Amino acid sequence: MISALKEVLAYISPFDDAELDRIAALFHSLQCRRNEQILREGETCTAFYFVQKGSIRTYFIDKKGNERTRYIMLDNWIGTALTSFISQQPSLECIEAMEDSELLFISHKDFFELNEQLSNWKRFYQRILEMAYAFQNKKIESLVTLSAKERYQQVLEENPALIQRVSNKVLASYLDINPETLSRLKSR
Amino acid sequence: MISALKEVLAYISPFDDAELDRIAALFHSLQCRRNEQILREGETCTAFYFVQKGSIRTYFIDKKGNERTRYIMLDNWIGTALTSFISQQPSLECIEAMEDSELLFISHKDFFELNEQLSNWKRFYQRILEMAYAFQNKKIESLVTLSAKERYQQVLEENPALIQRVSNKVLASYLDINPETLSRLKSR
Repeated sequence: MISALKEVLAYISPFDDAELDRIAALFHSLQCRRNEQILREGETCTAFYFVQKGSIRTYFIDKKGNERTRYIMLDNWIGTALTSFISQQPSLECIEAMEDSELLFISHKDFFELNEQLSNWKRFYQRILEMAYAFQNKKIESLVTLSAKERYQQVLEENPALIQRVSNKVLASYLDINPETLSRLKSR
Repeated sequence: MISALKEVLAYISPFDDAELDRIAALFHSLQCRRNEQILREGETCTAFYFVQKGSIRTYFIDKKGNERTRYIMLDNWIGTALTSFISQQPSLECIEAMEDSELLFISHKDFFELNEQLSNWKRFYQRILEMAYAFQNKKIESLVTLSAKERYQQVLEENPALIQRVSNKVLASYLDINPETLSRLKSR
C-alpha cells in the first residue's frame, strides 16, 4: 500500500528511492469508519493525509447550519484542512470520512522538518500550494461565473468519479446547488 | 521608493541586506495610466508586481460579460495573476490599473531563477502561496456563508482603505453584490 503513496509523492516532486523510503517511514496509519470526524471545527489540524482506500472530505458550516463541502479526496488523493495546517490556528473546516477509509498521515512537525531538510520536499510543498491555489481559484470562478448546470457538467467531465461515489447531499453542497436541482441534473 | 519594496520583502522572508540589494536590482519600473490594461485575458502573465503608488486589480469576465474583481492591490501590496504566472498558460484573469500607478515588477524568469538559487526566496514564494491560498479560501467561505451585508462589513473592518479608494462598481464586483445594494450599505 505504501507503494501507492510513493507513486503519488514521486509524481509531484522528483524524489529518489532513498528519499521516498525516508518519507514513507514518517507516515502513520489511521482507520476511520464512515461518517467519523477526523477533525472538528475549532481543533487545530496537525496532520496531512493520503487516502489509501475510501474517501474523506473537508467542509465548513455556514451561518444557517448547513454543511458546505470544499474538497473531496478519493483513493490516492492527498490533502488536509490546509489553512489550519499551515497557520496552526483552530480550523474553520472539518474533515470527515465519507466511507470506511484507510488513511496514511504525516504530522505537522515531521512535514515541516522535512521542509527544512529536504529540497525535494520543499518542492513538493511548493507544488501542493500551487495546486491548492489553482483549485481554489477555479472554485471561485465556478461559483461566480457558472450556473448550477454548468458546475455539474464541469465535474462530470473532469472528475466523474465524484458523481459516482459521493452522496447527493455531499455533492450538492460541493457544487453549491440544492439537492433537488442535483437530482434533476443527474436524472437527465 | 525601492526601500518600500525591500521592507515588504523583508516582512515576508528574512532576507539580509545583500539579498535585498540583489533582488531589488531585478525589479523594473512600469508607469500605468488609470484604466490601462496591464494583462489581457488570454495573455500569459510573465510579471510579479509591487505597487509603489496607485492601485491595480485582477478580474475575470463571466459568461454574461460582467467583470468580477478577484484581488485588489493598493500601495505597497504585491501580487499578480498568480495562476497564469505559475502555470505559464494563458490567463483567464486580466490586470488593470484603477488609478495612475507606479509599479515595480520582476519577470517570471528572474522570479524562478531566484527560487532555484536563494533559500530565502524559496521561503518568500512559499509564504506568498500560503497567503494567496488563505485569501482564496476565505473568499470562498465569504461567498458561500456570508450575506452581502456581512461581506461589506467584513471588508469595512479588515480593510477600510478598499471602501475609501475603490470605485463602487469595482467594489461591488469584488464583494459579489450588486452596485445598488452596495450604495445602500455605504449610505448607512
